[in-house]
Amino acid sequence: MGKQAIGVVGLAVMGRNLALNIESRGHAVSVFNRTREKTDELIAEFPDRKLVPTFTLEEFVNSLEKPRRILMMVKAGEGTDATIASLQPLLEKGDILIDGGNTHFTDTIRRNQELAKSGLHFIGTGVSGGEEGALKGPSIMPGGQREAYDLVAPILTEIAAKAPDGEPCVAYMGPDGAGHFVKMVHNGIEYGDMQLIAESYAVLKQVVGLSNQELGAVYTEWNKGELDSYLIEITSKIFDKKDDETGNDLVDIIMDRAAQKGTGKWTSQNALDLGAPLPLITEAVFARVLSSLKDQRVAASKVLEGPAAKPFSGDRAAFIEAVRRALYFSKVISYAQGFAQLRAASDEYKWDLDYGTIAKIFRAGCIIRARFLQKITDAYSKDKQIANLLLDPYFRDIAANYQGALRDVVIAATAAGVPVPAFSSAIAYFDGYRSARLPANLVQAQRDFFGAHTFERLDKPGSFHANWS
Amino acid sequence: MGKQAIGVVGLAVMGRNLALNIESRGHAVSVFNRTREKTDELIAEFPDRKLVPTFTLEEFVNSLEKPRRILMMVKAGEGTDATIASLQPLLEKGDILIDGGNTHFTDTIRRNQELAKSGLHFIGTGVSGGEEGALKGPSIMPGGQREAYDLVAPILTEIAAKAPDGEPCVAYMGPDGAGHFVKMVHNGIEYGDMQLIAESYAVLKQVVGLSNQELGAVYTEWNKGELDSYLIEITSKIFDKKDDETGNDLVDIIMDRAAQKGTGKWTSQNALDLGAPLPLITEAVFARVLSSLKDQRVAASKVLEGPAAKPFSGDRAAFIEAVRRALYFSKVISYAQGFAQLRAASDEYKWDLDYGTIAKIFRAGCIIRARFLQKITDAYSKDKQIANLLLDPYFRDIAANYQGALRDVVIAATAAGVPVPAFSSAIAYFDGYRSARLPANLVQAQRDFFGAHTFERLDKPGSFHANWS
Repeated sequence: MGKQAIGVVGLAVMGRNLALNIESRGHAVSVFNRTREKTDELIAEFPDRKLVPTFTLEEFVNSLEKPRRILMMVKAGEGTDATIASLQPLLEKGDILIDGGNTHFTDTIRRNQELAKSGLHFIGTGVSGGEEGALKGPSIMPGGQREAYDLVAPILTEIAAKAPDGEPCVAYMGPDGAGHFVKMVHNGIEYGDMQLIAESYAVLKQVVGLSNQELGAVYTEWNKGELDSYLIEITSKIFDKKDDETGNDLVDIIMDRAAQKGTGKWTSQNALDLGAPLPLITEAVFARVLSSLKDQRVAASKVLEGPAAKPFSGDRAAFIEAVRRALYFSKVISYAQGFAQLRAASDEYKWDLDYGTIAKIFRAGCIIRARFLQKITDAYSKDKQIANLLLDPYFRDIAANYQGALRDVVIAATAAGVPVPAFSSAIAYFDGYRSARLPANLVQAQRDFFGAHTFERLDKPGSFHANWS
Repeated sequence: MGKQAIGVVGLAVMGRNLALNIESRGHAVSVFNRTREKTDELIAEFPDRKLVPTFTLEEFVNSLEKPRRILMMVKAGEGTDATIASLQPLLEKGDILIDGGNTHFTDTIRRNQELAKSGLHFIGTGVSGGEEGALKGPSIMPGGQREAYDLVAPILTEIAAKAPDGEPCVAYMGPDGAGHFVKMVHNGIEYGDMQLIAESYAVLKQVVGLSNQELGAVYTEWNKGELDSYLIEITSKIFDKKDDETGNDLVDIIMDRAAQKGTGKWTSQNALDLGAPLPLITEAVFARVLSSLKDQRVAASKVLEGPAAKPFSGDRAAFIEAVRRALYFSKVISYAQGFAQLRAASDEYKWDLDYGTIAKIFRAGCIIRARFLQKITDAYSKDKQIANLLLDPYFRDIAANYQGALRDVVIAATAAGVPVPAFSSAIAYFDGYRSARLPANLVQAQRDFFGAHTFERLDKPGSFHANWS
């Protein structure tokens, strides 16, 4: 019996769907799971597919062509460490371990370096697109040894999503943790996108008074223009969905307690470590946390009053268009922050990230896929090292033309008592970023006053301390 | 020769000032520094004080009464670990090491547990008030073994700042890392306070057009009322200060690049870990980071335009009062977030923190000392377990009476293009916290749509998944 070009360890839904995806491109795939049940189930469900079941790691490893290509789809953290520890004694120099789990990039850096000592290659890769993406074509963000990537690139390229122009959504991100880092920021951006859409919904519902049916129509319309994206598309469908049981609109029955799995939090924590301003995504993370305090909010709503509700009295169509612009411009600001974080990380961890390529592979397969990403790729193809996307001519024009709408929406929501933390944070960041002077001189004066922390001067270089008292 | 009741290791400015403070209360103090120079200098400068110089750690340890009380004021991190490693072999069961450095609370938990294995006590304590506080009376936040605290409490009580009512600003915070945790949140709150004051300055200067002289007068006035605090006091003085060299107002010459030492960042990162919403302080941390990107901001200011500048046309006195109210209410919101974080930490780390006492010991000695803290103590004395300070009757009234002003200031600043990330975040949090319904139902619908993450329902318990397509 011949040997397989690749094997998959871990047959939960993501691993199994990736195995099926690889097999569908014409490759026999060795599969292994810690408990044999899942392996048996998979083979029973797809008896005609070229999936080669193995029941010990020895058997699994021996079933693979050399250098071995092993895709691990196991529980991130201890699961990954345990799998590596079991596999490592069975592997030979040049073999390639691929971690496709939701791993923190610092773990990937550590594992990459440790395994390199034994001559083993380690690729940490982001895989975005959920179960369906895994099966039909995810966006793939691999990082690790370049020579190892080249040996798995053909298969990854075959299974990746294809962008509208036919380009596969996979590319080498950079050394060690670069792939998992890019996936983390992708997820942080996803948190930002979702919060912005939620705020647009709150404003349209609470300020303008749109019904679910009208909301569905608005998002359907928006999805035809520059906001065209997977998240807007599914949002429009959500408002049309009826509850099977009650027949009422499902969206109104769903509990307003947002859950999270932690990658948004990681993104914010890393931005704080890097000193890369990421206020919008961080507000989105905190907004989810605040939403989870449902009982406190219900209790607070009975004692903390806001502005009296008023029927909407302006031009509905004009205000809806303002919300659309506010959403698009805020999204631009969020991505500007996220890509600035990528840039700070690339400098800090010496990854030489290619930002235009990153935007490119987000164009299909993943949750944040959107027409708009092409604009980011275009911006970086004009200036590979642009400090901030807001400085690119296209985004500069969006800023010029849409900032008025964003201000109007923040003002209307603030006056009406509708919380818009991400919209507000967006305009505050924009106004801060374009301010040659900020009031931080006062902060520095205070720090020097109480702690002799010294300050710089505008008129000459150096470090100074004043005798304040 | 008699032995001393306490010794200080590390004679940089904080250590030396604390030693002098202790000595000034009538205690002879053993002192030691890694390099003998600093010890010699201190003794030479204060030949008549009861400071007992020692030049080896053996000599230092032998000079102390048992159980030994050793205050370490060394560089946090490796410096602390190295000092502990050198001291540990010389110590005996029951001796007490006190770390007064700016240590991350997780390090304190680790050290406390490790030393406990050898029967050594370890107290991690926050010391706030800078150089002057250390010398004359800091706010002190000790955590560790209760029985060890009781043995050092008399000296700590003597050297601590005294609140207006005479109470010393020191109290047992809780086990292991509780003291350093409280100090960390204190510092985070300080970041928030400073950013809010900076935003009030920006609005008064850029929207109303106040001169530095007028600003100084405004803050002097504010310091007579409910905003009465150390930071407002020094702010008023800062606007009066002339530059020695040029004779111009110093505040206008100071570079607007805010520095930081990382404790604000820690506070935000921990809030993200705990799932405790801390958006205001986090916006303040990011605002410092954004301010540090001076070159980018200057470049951006040339291509990103904002609203045209307009002379202020409203009622100046009324708007200044609105800014005062916005500042006070935002400060309330910031402390509500910070104290909610303390509560989440107390639950998570099993510390049984006493929030009213914490507010009490902030009343003097430390940077955030303020009349307002008494209101927090009062709130907790009415309800020890209140979920959020905004629910207390006093703060509820502030919310009712001042939210209009905060909205007006956010609206005016947003319209004028003046960045107010902390003010905006404050009102967004307030409106979110008092919302029985938030748009997070849409977020949950999206998560279930793309990732089958399931959702809860409002009408019955359980976890549900819809067939969206």
